[in-house]
Amino acid sequence: MHCLNIFLKDCERLDDLQYKGLKIIQNKNFFCFGIDAVLLSDFTDVHTKDSVLDIGTGNAIIPILLSGRSMSKKIIGIEIQPEIAELARRNIILNRLEERVSIVTGDIKDSLKYFAPSSFNVIVSNPPYMNSNGGLVSISKAKAIARHEISCTLDDIIREASKLLINNGQFAMVHRPHRLVDIIYTLRKYSLEPKYLRFVHPSPYKKANLLLIKAFKYGNPELKMMEPLYVYDENNNYTSEINKIYHREENKA
Amino acid sequence: MHCLNIFLKDCERLDDLQYKGLKIIQNKNFFCFGIDAVLLSDFTDVHTKDSVLDIGTGNAIIPILLSGRSMSKKIIGIEIQPEIAELARRNIILNRLEERVSIVTGDIKDSLKYFAPSSFNVIVSNPPYMNSNGGLVSISKAKAIARHEISCTLDDIIREASKLLINNGQFAMVHRPHRLVDIIYTLRKYSLEPKYLRFVHPSPYKKANLLLIKAFKYGNPELKMMEPLYVYDENNNYTSEINKIYHREENKA
Repeated sequence: MHCLNIFLKDCERLDDLQYKGLKIIQNKNFFCFGIDAVLLSDFTDVHTKDSVLDIGTGNAIIPILLSGRSMSKKIIGIEIQPEIAELARRNIILNRLEERVSIVTGDIKDSLKYFAPSSFNVIVSNPPYMNSNGGLVSISKAKAIARHEISCTLDDIIREASKLLINNGQFAMVHRPHRLVDIIYTLRKYSLEPKYLRFVHPSPYKKANLLLIKAFKYGNPELKMMEPLYVYDENNNYTSEINKIYHREENKA
Repeated sequence: MHCLNIFLKDCERLDDLQYKGLKIIQNKNFFCFGIDAVLLSDFTDVHTKDSVLDIGTGNAIIPILLSGRSMSKKIIGIEIQPEIAELARRNIILNRLEERVSIVTGDIKDSLKYFAPSSFNVIVSNPPYMNSNGGLVSISKAKAIARHEISCTLDDIIREASKLLINNGQFAMVHRPHRLVDIIYTLRKYSLEPKYLRFVHPSPYKKANLLLIKAFKYGNPELKMMEPLYVYDENNNYTSEINKIYHREENKA
């Protein structure tokens, strides 16, 4: 086995994803991945021949998870912050995914500088959840860009995704329910018709705090509302679906 | 007590609403009210001084329920089918609500023939759920008009509601989740900003099969996602919230 020269910087830690041997370096000064990235990766349909783009890829957690869940050989993450894109590249090398995953440092608002129109089958995004005028802006600039619409807005992401997707291409996103109206309105405005919607609730009698939405370019109107996804059940245990998504049953066996 | 000369036609039956002595005549050849009307009435905020319009009022179940839940003295139902509007008027007399509720026979698409612009505080609707090209059209013409977008579309209802509401006036609707994208897109298109959304599920682990949505004219964007409403709990009993909405606890006491 080859020895990989992966070094950890200050404030970085190496986490085992507990899935197919995948690992990830995270930096606590940046945005660390959470359940949203895992749920979005599970929710997205990726087939072997698909070319996939992750907008605002951060430390590349979504490309890495999608590489484990599919055989796709063309997964690209675009990230505007150079120091985070550099971390993402180390994560790709760490997982020996250089043949399948690549990282572009760039601004999605200039998407046609980097990519041809209608060149992706699947585009995913775990974008900043807060509009630039909403919520407390977090201390570090890197975290603020990941969480607030500072570098790009929801409109920017959806508009550029629509340019880059083939006809009937899939756009999948995780977001917060308080933005649902903006999300649906903007998707349809750019001809990405929402077709699947799933709400994620902490437990059955609590409000949804995340949503997963899948839209298809020039799709026919008619939404399929999916079963709610509960993280914990009535007895405060993880639901079987969450255990399955995290491959916890596999690990137990 | 005065004796009311209310007569029942063939195919009609008199139902007790089990709430404040309210009663309703229904005709089995028309559309009979269901849980949607009860939930919508409970979901809508009506204050004493509000003027209220129910679009597509049918047998007037929603004006009757709203008259029980509020002290509003100006509740109007508009109904396009003359024979159903006539039934609605008998229901108003039956409940001695002539001073507070009135029925207009007319087409909501001509709303400004009957009502002044910006003249209602609250508009509600339990509209046809199917687009005109979807679902099996039911046998009777009356039922078909109630269930399918034959006489008016979702766009017609929302456009006219927007004309008739005062600034910050409330539009409340019950509908099916598969139309959520159409609903949200159309509401915002006509400056009715969706502010509250609640999904109704048969039970906690089942898909939502109804939605309740409240929009405000020229409201600020930001949706409040409400707790899910479950009709039955895990043990197949009505949930306490459903019992409360139906005043079942009150009746038991």
